[in-house]
Amino acid sequence: MSVLECIRTRRAIRDFEERQVPEEVLRAILEAGRLAPSARNTQPWEFIVIRAPERLTQLSRLTSTGPHLTKAPLAVAVAMLKARYPEVDAARAIQNMILVAWEHGVGSCWIGNWDAEKAKALLGLPADSLLIAVVPFGYPREGTRVARKKQRRPLHTLVHREAYGTPYYKEGAGAGTPRGGS
Amino acid sequence: MSVLECIRTRRAIRDFEERQVPEEVLRAILEAGRLAPSARNTQPWEFIVIRAPERLTQLSRLTSTGPHLTKAPLAVAVAMLKARYPEVDAARAIQNMILVAWEHGVGSCWIGNWDAEKAKALLGLPADSLLIAVVPFGYPREGTRVARKKQRRPLHTLVHREAYGTPYYKEGAGAGTPRGGS
Repeated sequence: MSVLECIRTRRAIRDFEERQVPEEVLRAILEAGRLAPSARNTQPWEFIVIRAPERLTQLSRLTSTGPHLTKAPLAVAVAMLKARYPEVDAARAIQNMILVAWEHGVGSCWIGNWDAEKAKALLGLPADSLLIAVVPFGYPREGTRVARKKQRRPLHTLVHREAYGTPYYKEGAGAGTPRGGS
Repeated sequence: MSVLECIRTRRAIRDFEERQVPEEVLRAILEAGRLAPSARNTQPWEFIVIRAPERLTQLSRLTSTGPHLTKAPLAVAVAMLKARYPEVDAARAIQNMILVAWEHGVGSCWIGNWDAEKAKALLGLPADSLLIAVVPFGYPREGTRVARKKQRRPLHTLVHREAYGTPYYKEGAGAGTPRGGS
């Protein structure tokens, strides 16, 4: 699968089969995060692998958007320590992980909005750390993966030429003809 | 190239050949950004394609980390409008772009730390927008790509089991043997 194909087919998955994600697939996912770029290569991330069902259930109660956490066989929490740009660095590592998971047929869905103090306590995280996300991983339950078409703004509405306000692409025309010139 | 292979081989590139990035490759890069996930699928991003050398030079003066911007044939500025999580959403889109660029042999390097007001004025961006990064893209100059080995923390130092402080992997042992159990 090419990278663009992986990006194109990926969907947020919130319902998982019960079977576990094999260790070698988990390792590939964690490698993808480990190899991500970060500001000044500080790599200020810590990854916590959570498989214990009772911990996943406890965690799911500490966010408004995480009921599907209880359906996942596995989740990875990403916390940042002494990071200058915690959101950016975490997001790049997590995006890497999500793409490599998908390449292996494993779905995921970023969960944010944590009751931070309680979630950090549950995960034994230092007080000065920042919990950015908990990402459940698992095999999409039958039927989940063939989800509806991705809903996205077309390129001509969001790509500008040299400065904001001048569209780079013409509307229609295969939605990809550069406007004027090469 | 598999996604993990792309992630593994990618390097930050700061010196570029003069030749342009073809339109179809640029389009694949922008597609990768467009298809990225965002909080509640709000897609609050605007991408500005910059090729004009004088504009790249002007921009390079508005950050302390961007002298290589003048060596790039092309850059994409990413600005966020009314985003609830601008850094996270931008970083996920940019990471997608950087990976697909690399898949096509095109290198890049995230530039942040902008003199935001001046850079936004130069790019015609609305006052309430947030300029997250300008990312130069181009073919790595001969010799640049075969860079030194990636320097990263080993997995056993950054992956924890169930809670922070219990290593998931043993040190050594192929750096990938899970500690105790499956």
